Amino acid sequence: MRFRSNIAGLAGYAPGEQPQDSEIIKLNTNENPYPPSPKVFAALRSALRSSLRLYPEPLSDSLRSAAAAVYGVMPANIIAGNGSDELLAIALRCFVGPGDGVAFPVPTYSLYDTLVEIQDGVRLAVDYPADFSLPASLSAQNAILTFLCNPNAPSGTMVPLPEIEKLARSVSGVLVVDEAYVDFAASEGSSALPLIRRLPNLIVLRSFSKSFSLAGMRIGLAFASDEIIAGMMKVKDSYNLNRLSLVAAGAALQDLPWMTRNARRIQRSRQRLTYALKRMGYQVYPSHANFVLARKPGQNLKPVYEELKRHKILVRYFDVPGLQDCLRVTVGTPKEIAALIAAMSKIAAEPPSQRG
Amino acid sequence: MRFRSNIAGLAGYAPGEQPQDSEIIKLNTNENPYPPSPKVFAALRSALRSSLRLYPEPLSDSLRSAAAAVYGVMPANIIAGNGSDELLAIALRCFVGPGDGVAFPVPTYSLYDTLVEIQDGVRLAVDYPADFSLPASLSAQNAILTFLCNPNAPSGTMVPLPEIEKLARSVSGVLVVDEAYVDFAASEGSSALPLIRRLPNLIVLRSFSKSFSLAGMRIGLAFASDEIIAGMMKVKDSYNLNRLSLVAAGAALQDLPWMTRNARRIQRSRQRLTYALKRMGYQVYPSHANFVLARKPGQNLKPVYEELKRHKILVRYFDVPGLQDCLRVTVGTPKEIAALIAAMSKIAAEPPSQRG
Repeated sequence: MRFRSNIAGLAGYAPGEQPQDSEIIKLNTNENPYPPSPKVFAALRSALRSSLRLYPEPLSDSLRSAAAAVYGVMPANIIAGNGSDELLAIALRCFVGPGDGVAFPVPTYSLYDTLVEIQDGVRLAVDYPADFSLPASLSAQNAILTFLCNPNAPSGTMVPLPEIEKLARSVSGVLVVDEAYVDFAASEGSSALPLIRRLPNLIVLRSFSKSFSLAGMRIGLAFASDEIIAGMMKVKDSYNLNRLSLVAAGAALQDLPWMTRNARRIQRSRQRLTYALKRMGYQVYPSHANFVLARKPGQNLKPVYEELKRHKILVRYFDVPGLQDCLRVTVGTPKEIAALIAAMSKIAAEPPSQRG
Repeated sequence: MRFRSNIAGLAGYAPGEQPQDSEIIKLNTNENPYPPSPKVFAALRSALRSSLRLYPEPLSDSLRSAAAAVYGVMPANIIAGNGSDELLAIALRCFVGPGDGVAFPVPTYSLYDTLVEIQDGVRLAVDYPADFSLPASLSAQNAILTFLCNPNAPSGTMVPLPEIEKLARSVSGVLVVDEAYVDFAASEGSSALPLIRRLPNLIVLRSFSKSFSLAGMRIGLAFASDEIIAGMMKVKDSYNLNRLSLVAAGAALQDLPWMTRNARRIQRSRQRLTYALKRMGYQVYPSHANFVLARKPGQNLKPVYEELKRHKILVRYFDVPGLQDCLRVTVGTPKEIAALIAAMSKIAAEPPSQRG
């Protein structure tokens, strides 16, 4: 009994903490502070029927039709996943064999690393410049697959659309643009989704976890050419979305105003949070996501993370080189943000010797 | 843009038809004819809350604890999957690299073929003897991974426990015993689950789709040594089960009498169905599952399948060599079985020239 060597050597992806204590202010895993649409709950309630004994639609056809109408593509351009994480894994399983290169700028969503290792591929990481603009050498990696998280996690920064089109045309293989956060972008028309019509090597990923407030339901969509989608369909599990996820996703798409209203509230809170953090001496990257990355150059912020945790406020601290002087803070409700700022001010005012 | 050659050449797994017409008597994909426990619905109703905006437990710990108590193992011996299909895929991704051999007796669950190809492994299929007893040469394949579907699909037959233990000790790699149907076995104590304590290379799979009437929720469990489970955990998606699947599974385990009562009803109906089919001249394998395989040696049964479909009754016909003289029939309610038998009698009585 022996695991493949790439699996045996794998540390595994470390998801953010998911405490069950409901008193904690949870600003660590970029969940939406507002609930899903009432239409989602109504649809779920009427789906609690004996039909749960039956398999779901194998190809998620109803959801694909609904999404096609909303996003202006054909159902054949869409595959639904058990979270966009599943769609990332499927893309790797489709295109990446042992020794194949997978390129992406870093720091970014650390799951990419894990998935490349699981597939026994070769990680071709290219450092982002200090301003998180697109690294010029990314397209020169001769990669089978290139990832671009846009808006990027954990920086929140965004690469403009013309640069993405140029990137897709210059990479040697497939380009995956991971748009989990794009509904929070400062300006509309930032999504690469319309580009799939003219770029046959482009996959655009969307998630229902953030803007649609459905992290608990695990729903993602990938958009691409018919040919790419047909190949990805062969690799997905036969029934990869359950009945209730399909119902929730369909209902969420029927109430876009609910989603966009919450996204706008989060944009406004993001501005206030950014302003407050800057006043406290943090460098804050211009964010197009539902989180901000706050930096105190050269200062390890682990003690601040830990103090906040003692105040029952969870933010994300990445204990990896290049990010130890940063905290990533999810944009919560105005009240949660006020509590965070108050706690951070208090922590900053205390001399370190009195802590703990 | 090029798919891996193993993916490009893949036909993909063909799931059974999932018609949306509720008038159809659906005896083709081994769903349970009885609804899930009322406790499942009650738990789901109270889970329809704003917490759906939050990620689920990453490691399904509550479900693992509940399952550990029910099945008499430790939580560290359990991994939960988005259906046992996901757990099959994870096992392959853990152990099988390009060119590695995966052995299994055939005919069996055809997803094994697809998953081996996706992983670019080598299929080592060993024919079952006519009575579907364990092929002696299975353990001699020098496989990295060996699958045994037990009870087997589509035959419904079962390999006795002592032979499984012997098989696990004689294979060179890991043995996966897929027990999706074991709750319908004719005698208790048929499960290999207790063997995981002394066989470090054994993985036992269970599904909530059949006996717990939850095919629509996609829930499976794998049981194995701590070491195997820890490795499989690294490969699974971070949040592979959504909140409602976790709730449904937990509640189903709290109402075992509901499941066992339905399993006993299905056993009784299986007897009646088997008897009726035999009376109609079919050879029927002794089934330990919620379906039976009926054979008319040498006679292609596709016309019978098609006639039944015209009568709005769906059964499973496998258009592959060795199974074309068979129909696999899910054990439905007594009423559904009566309708099936009536339709089959009618079809048999009609001269073929009057059909179509």
